[in-house]
Amino acid sequence: MPTPTPAQDLAAGRTAFLFDLDGTLVDNVYEHVLAWREALTSIGGELSSWHLHRHIGMSGGLLTRELFRALGREPDPDEMERVKQCHREAFARLSKGIRPLPGAPELLAYLTKIGVPWAIATSGRRDNAEPALERLEVPGHVPIISREQADHAKPDPDLFLVAAQALDVPVGDAMIVGDSVWDLLAARRAGALAIGLLTGGIAADELYRASPYRVYQDPADLLRHLDQVAIRG
Amino acid sequence: MPTPTPAQDLAAGRTAFLFDLDGTLVDNVYEHVLAWREALTSIGGELSSWHLHRHIGMSGGLLTRELFRALGREPDPDEMERVKQCHREAFARLSKGIRPLPGAPELLAYLTKIGVPWAIATSGRRDNAEPALERLEVPGHVPIISREQADHAKPDPDLFLVAAQALDVPVGDAMIVGDSVWDLLAARRAGALAIGLLTGGIAADELYRASPYRVYQDPADLLRHLDQVAIRG
Repeated sequence: MPTPTPAQDLAAGRTAFLFDLDGTLVDNVYEHVLAWREALTSIGGELSSWHLHRHIGMSGGLLTRELFRALGREPDPDEMERVKQCHREAFARLSKGIRPLPGAPELLAYLTKIGVPWAIATSGRRDNAEPALERLEVPGHVPIISREQADHAKPDPDLFLVAAQALDVPVGDAMIVGDSVWDLLAARRAGALAIGLLTGGIAADELYRASPYRVYQDPADLLRHLDQVAIRG
Repeated sequence: MPTPTPAQDLAAGRTAFLFDLDGTLVDNVYEHVLAWREALTSIGGELSSWHLHRHIGMSGGLLTRELFRALGREPDPDEMERVKQCHREAFARLSKGIRPLPGAPELLAYLTKIGVPWAIATSGRRDNAEPALERLEVPGHVPIISREQADHAKPDPDLFLVAAQALDVPVGDAMIVGDSVWDLLAARRAGALAIGLLTGGIAADELYRASPYRVYQDPADLLRHLDQVAIRG
């Protein structure tokens, strides 16, 4: 009778990483906050920055609908489109000096080096993601799943499901890494374990309420603790 | 023998409010974060936004020294001055559309109406505070204590001590209202009770670790609950 293979070793061999992009690999959440505030002002709406901050990372459509709800107004499709367009313009203007978060390039390069498959799944549109992907020097073979490729963005699990499919791994074997509560909720709905990062400015206590597997400070901190999350070097 | 006056009624009659300005009465913390990041970049430094965010509200000098420490560099006085100057310029550019936080004008007007003395104590310089004070329509008789009027800014208690003196109330009878951990720590060192607001984007759990008397969402929420904090209408 063959010796049974320990389950955790099997899992380690199969682990894949699915990364959120904005706020997780690049430092641009605060720009998103100011861009959404500017966008709301364009339709006469006002919401406080700290409140908007807690909606960053969710689907743009869902976020816009939430904003209208918070303003106590019926969302009008034309107005919603105008808000989204204004956010895109303001965000492009504010985020010119886009920077990778500490350890992000090193973490991605290390995973590539040891043969762990990884992909990126962002609630944003592909063209918005382009500057970040360039700064991170993401290799051409890495699947980049953006808004266009799923019916629903986060906190729906779709983007992560498509990303796991693109890597040809069961999503349940993937570790999902994100900086927002919406990433962590999407991960749970996908049936995957999630790793929260503090890099989006959401406190550890707030992230832990969405039941991640673990929270680390930033990609550099995650890289230092990879052996706690299924990668044995 | 006269009936003893209950202590809490005495306290209620004596209560004064000392307010922080940025992030507490006006919505500009996220602009401060981006302005400090830009300032650091000007001297070749890099710190993540979420990390900078948690230093907003402390004395500019102390913050600059902390930043150098985090960068692992000796602070050079010329370089420190350059960083502060660059922050001032970037902040002025980013915060053109400065807005009062929900309920801030109403809360201040209500305190004035019922005769509760109040003052503002900011870690910033007076000229930086001017646009915010104009937007809030602060009456001319209200003491505005700024960086120039104290040896040390927050988390040292000096600014709040000077503000209490200007109102001629014992600081121990004042309620100090702020959005940052530094306000709350300064309040404790001053021997006053503090009220934390979520408007600076710092989560309630993070604020509660600095032992405020209570945390409210924003000035509007504090106004709705004034009877919990020594004002009986």
